[in-house]
Amino acid sequence: MTKLTEMIGIKYPLFQGGMAWVADHHIAAAVSNAGGLGIIGCGGADENWIRTQIQECRKLTDKPFGVNVMLMNPRAPQIAEVLAEEKVAVVTTGAGSAGKFIPMWKEAGIIVIPVVPSVALAKKMEKDGADAVIAEGTESGGHVGELTTMALVPQVVDAVNIPVIAAGGIADGRGVAASFMLGACGVQCGTVFCASEEVNIHQNYKDMIIKAKDRSTQVTGRSAGAPVRQIKNKLTKKFEELEKRNASFEEMESLGVGALRKAVVEGDIDNGTFMAGQIAGMINEIRPVQAIIDDMFAEANKLLSGAGPVC
Amino acid sequence: MTKLTEMIGIKYPLFQGGMAWVADHHIAAAVSNAGGLGIIGCGGADENWIRTQIQECRKLTDKPFGVNVMLMNPRAPQIAEVLAEEKVAVVTTGAGSAGKFIPMWKEAGIIVIPVVPSVALAKKMEKDGADAVIAEGTESGGHVGELTTMALVPQVVDAVNIPVIAAGGIADGRGVAASFMLGACGVQCGTVFCASEEVNIHQNYKDMIIKAKDRSTQVTGRSAGAPVRQIKNKLTKKFEELEKRNASFEEMESLGVGALRKAVVEGDIDNGTFMAGQIAGMINEIRPVQAIIDDMFAEANKLLSGAGPVC
Repeated sequence: MTKLTEMIGIKYPLFQGGMAWVADHHIAAAVSNAGGLGIIGCGGADENWIRTQIQECRKLTDKPFGVNVMLMNPRAPQIAEVLAEEKVAVVTTGAGSAGKFIPMWKEAGIIVIPVVPSVALAKKMEKDGADAVIAEGTESGGHVGELTTMALVPQVVDAVNIPVIAAGGIADGRGVAASFMLGACGVQCGTVFCASEEVNIHQNYKDMIIKAKDRSTQVTGRSAGAPVRQIKNKLTKKFEELEKRNASFEEMESLGVGALRKAVVEGDIDNGTFMAGQIAGMINEIRPVQAIIDDMFAEANKLLSGAGPVC
Repeated sequence: MTKLTEMIGIKYPLFQGGMAWVADHHIAAAVSNAGGLGIIGCGGADENWIRTQIQECRKLTDKPFGVNVMLMNPRAPQIAEVLAEEKVAVVTTGAGSAGKFIPMWKEAGIIVIPVVPSVALAKKMEKDGADAVIAEGTESGGHVGELTTMALVPQVVDAVNIPVIAAGGIADGRGVAASFMLGACGVQCGTVFCASEEVNIHQNYKDMIIKAKDRSTQVTGRSAGAPVRQIKNKLTKKFEELEKRNASFEEMESLGVGALRKAVVEGDIDNGTFMAGQIAGMINEIRPVQAIIDDMFAEANKLLSGAGPVC
């Protein structure tokens, strides 16, 4: 199997997750320049925004970078076409099944890597022509499935013949090393890059990550079929109350409208949605992307090289 | 730090989880004879039952074995005394804080290893004199916390100076190797031993594990503050309906009365509680305990010895 780093042309087998509102061209260029694969997150933005982000990113880096498409976005078809026109190096997808766009992207020479929360979707994506999949555990920030990284990654590895990248719960060399032992050939990280110098988010968001402990996140929206992991605050308490009294999907949705923007742009601690993974408890300082990535892989390589039989 | 295997006097750094109703002296003796630490699960049983189990276990093995105490058991104080009198080698605890029993157990020469779902409880148990902790992820079967193994284990390792055993999502050498990379010095497994020849449970329970796929488990009881992971069936559907209409704790409890017994003893597929972890999807055959354990560590040792830098 071709190594992930050779397949894409990157130094480190590391993706920075394409987080909505958080991951614009700033963090993506920084991660790509540092040797990983930076990814711009479309979220709910439209095709004009993403075209601008791609062009801005190309001014800051000549390394490969990717774009994440949230397939529930009503502009997904238009966005998909822009990505083909722009011939971005890599497209990742979430919140749905990318099947219908894969032929167009493959024709444009794009490497397609859907994010999957289950074995069934991993198999379907392989069948539809995906080049690899990102098996993402429920410990991640943002929209999550139910399976954890430890349980999901090896089961996906067993089910497909394409490379599997592990995501969820990884912020240092230990998580990288563990992921490779589970059979992954790369990792995707999100939360740790929210605590970087280069990420273009409000200082309050970065501080929320730093202050978080192991139990600081919770999942809201399970009852509405749209589970989201975020840092506990007054807003999550309100979501909890709505869920307790079986509020409608519309009520919950309206409580959430604009909440991610409030977190990322305004730093509204009480009313913003501060998406973050359970690994936030491990992250205690804001550092440059280069330091985060270099240290993560120095530690991983040391652990893996020094490993021996346990009995 | 003394190796776990030396601390306890076992060949493999492996515990078999002390599962209520499932883990009687049969499986515990088999696992201890195979070189791991077998553990008898008290569950809701009383001190007479546990004393008998300990004595029966000693007829089948002269190796160390443990007992798990569910601290919510109303007979926990009496059980705790029996364990001290019988001088069992190891006591593990769940569903609460073992603090008040630790001095008595330590005086009896017992190695005390509480199961913890969070950094805070791990630190408290260390402060109270625990010899090690089992950091158990939410992907486990049975009563679960919210943190996953990938996120919890390294955070607990960072927080305490005593050995940390990883539990949750481990059923083969990959999970063992990953756990050691996260900083654990041993693993605890439950679900995989439910698919062994020696475990004393109804054939239907074993078959449910074999048939399970990655998404076959769910957590019920979150709203009642008592989350339990089990294989989806008609009973879990009923729990879901109760939770949707905000049924009381008592209603949910009464639906669950005797349900574990129905699973373990009667093999009642529709009305039993078939506790199992998300890793059940990986388990596809029923095997002897010796084969399960030997293969798990042969694979782990091979992965760890063969590991090298990833970039």
